[in-house]
Amino acid sequence: MTVTEQMIHVARNAREASRRLGSLSANVKNELLRRMAQGLLDAQEQLTGENEKDLMAARAAGLSTAMLDRLTLDSGRIRGMADGLREVAELPDPVGEVTGMRRRPNGLLVGRMRVPLGVIGIIYESRPNVTADAAGLCLKSGNAVILRGGKESLHSNLAIGGILQNQLERMGLPAACLQVIKTTDRDAMLELLKREDEIDLIIPRGGEGLIRFVSEHSRIPVIKHYKGVCHTFVDASADFAQAEKICVNAKVQRPGVCNAMETLLVHQDIAETFIPRIASVMRSHGVELRGCPVTREFAPDIQAASEEDWYAEYLDLTLAVRVVENLEEAIDHIRTYGSLHTEVIVTRDYENSQRFLNEVNSSVVMVNASSRFSDGHQLGLGAEIGISTTKLHSFGPMGLEDLTTRKFIIYGDGQVRD
Amino acid sequence: MTVTEQMIHVARNAREASRRLGSLSANVKNELLRRMAQGLLDAQEQLTGENEKDLMAARAAGLSTAMLDRLTLDSGRIRGMADGLREVAELPDPVGEVTGMRRRPNGLLVGRMRVPLGVIGIIYESRPNVTADAAGLCLKSGNAVILRGGKESLHSNLAIGGILQNQLERMGLPAACLQVIKTTDRDAMLELLKREDEIDLIIPRGGEGLIRFVSEHSRIPVIKHYKGVCHTFVDASADFAQAEKICVNAKVQRPGVCNAMETLLVHQDIAETFIPRIASVMRSHGVELRGCPVTREFAPDIQAASEEDWYAEYLDLTLAVRVVENLEEAIDHIRTYGSLHTEVIVTRDYENSQRFLNEVNSSVVMVNASSRFSDGHQLGLGAEIGISTTKLHSFGPMGLEDLTTRKFIIYGDGQVRD
Repeated sequence: MTVTEQMIHVARNAREASRRLGSLSANVKNELLRRMAQGLLDAQEQLTGENEKDLMAARAAGLSTAMLDRLTLDSGRIRGMADGLREVAELPDPVGEVTGMRRRPNGLLVGRMRVPLGVIGIIYESRPNVTADAAGLCLKSGNAVILRGGKESLHSNLAIGGILQNQLERMGLPAACLQVIKTTDRDAMLELLKREDEIDLIIPRGGEGLIRFVSEHSRIPVIKHYKGVCHTFVDASADFAQAEKICVNAKVQRPGVCNAMETLLVHQDIAETFIPRIASVMRSHGVELRGCPVTREFAPDIQAASEEDWYAEYLDLTLAVRVVENLEEAIDHIRTYGSLHTEVIVTRDYENSQRFLNEVNSSVVMVNASSRFSDGHQLGLGAEIGISTTKLHSFGPMGLEDLTTRKFIIYGDGQVRD
Repeated sequence: MTVTEQMIHVARNAREASRRLGSLSANVKNELLRRMAQGLLDAQEQLTGENEKDLMAARAAGLSTAMLDRLTLDSGRIRGMADGLREVAELPDPVGEVTGMRRRPNGLLVGRMRVPLGVIGIIYESRPNVTADAAGLCLKSGNAVILRGGKESLHSNLAIGGILQNQLERMGLPAACLQVIKTTDRDAMLELLKREDEIDLIIPRGGEGLIRFVSEHSRIPVIKHYKGVCHTFVDASADFAQAEKICVNAKVQRPGVCNAMETLLVHQDIAETFIPRIASVMRSHGVELRGCPVTREFAPDIQAASEEDWYAEYLDLTLAVRVVENLEEAIDHIRTYGSLHTEVIVTRDYENSQRFLNEVNSSVVMVNASSRFSDGHQLGLGAEIGISTTKLHSFGPMGLEDLTTRKFIIYGDGQVRD
């Protein structure tokens, strides 16, 4: 089979399997996920063995310690995947919910029923645990899933996929509900991205390069976020202790993730007091600051920020700091340089809190809390399949419901149109 | 300016204008739409004059009578556009609604606020009334709109756009809230379809060729339906009089639209009685039938259907008819040949009605009613911007709410993550 034929085959089998999956009860899906969790735990030896093949190749290729760490499957991570599947089994099933049932003047009863999207493609990089995590969310929401991971983790991904498929087959369900692509060829991925008739959604997870590549080449709708340039604006009326606590948490608690703060905006009326204070505490946490000219008046020993710094997603202990004239300038800065991810205002002013919530057009907007809460678990979605910073379908952290859509259902008794 | 520069200019101005539009109150937007309606009525002479230029060119180019009819703006159609704008002014504003506000265990109050998408591009063919209709829905939902119509109606579209822009300016609002592209160059459209940073959604309206072209070339999300191959399945238990009434209405009442029935499926147990009856009544309405072999046993004088007929969207007084063994075969036929638009079952059987509603995965599924009800007005959306047969964001007829998205809003009092 050519690569094209293989991908057509994978996509058609997924579409076919999705029909069966879409009509399963929550009980059956939950049982499946629990068995999958147990299957992973029982296969620990096999999994670490396959993972070792990936690790050996990675060491030979001279990958960084951080990359090797991401690749590693140890017993803790295997338990993590199993726990994740069991947690998803406990979540309510979004499929089948009927909402908005209303009687039309002609007697038709019109409402909407939540249904699975159908087939979801996940394209990811080196972390093998994504194979189980993403599969759990897709299956629970009634969707067939096609998983295409990075070449570094191919042995691990195939091993995880095989174990999960085993449980599907033991329950008499089509193995094609979950398929791990056996080749990490770029051509194969490109073929997959053309199968718009069989695949309903592509979710790329990884670096900006991968996401842009997928987005540019896909004919299938893509839900994505390129980066998280999250802002915290400390307003003139802010409680300084609260502002400090929120800023430190947003920058330092886990700097390598997309909901960490990258730019701090400070109202000019408090700059003289707040800038030296926050500069000193950030320095004590090992954070390197880059400031605008006004910031540097009050913290002369920090580096000057360039235009690029306002666009930067450092994912590191680096922070850009800018003094703004007022709320409007803060909002303008966010609109110009932001990534529509998450923005925070720290304020005691009622009007400014409301204006910030209304006027900032990012996917998550907060008053007086750390941007680190911008996460599906933290916001009550139960689990997270990704974050969308494009506005179609989903905006912000995405849970099970975001993997579904709604169809109209209509009960009539012979109505026709005049 | 090159075409690329022009389109960058148009897209950036729209993005800029959308910021102002997004924060307008419903009162201001409604007043704007009412003034726009009056503006169109007051400019009737100018509009028919500009339209005459399009009509002359169209006659010279030898366009069909049907095409000329679609192009024509007479006083009735101008009143129709004005009435449409006034109706949209009366609809509730979806923007600003907050839902799902819940307290998290740590005290954070988390909910979602409905917000405009931002900038919407409408790409359409020859009907100039789309200029006003689409603009009304986009503006009411707080979105800036870029309108790119067909070359046959350019004078008419520019005249309508100019009148609507006048009302924006008189109310002190940015003219770029509504822009009609001055060139119908394909290159200009292609440039527009690349502006993913400024345009949030593209809605193509027209024939399948246009929609496929837009869909294949757009980097911006596209909401579309290619065609409506709507099915009616007459089950064994159907009331024949009701089935006949529903089938005739679905096929004959307005055959040229996407929610008209294109294929009739008949349960084999009633074929011997129902097929001759429906064949005769359809013939009396001038409908040409094309049948499967079993259908032709009971209606020997009709043409044989080929494989292509099952995929056909005739948009005309032609109907494909197939006898199926049972409900499963009906559902399988719809899944194989359907377009995910609208499907109907006529039945008196409870279990079959429920199975059809649950298992048919089209955007609108009905029991005992004409497929002609698959329309935003008829289903209670108030107005319709289009129909989506792709599952992302919207599925089925789309109203004002479908031109919006939801962002997370979070009220805290100093929460940080552990």
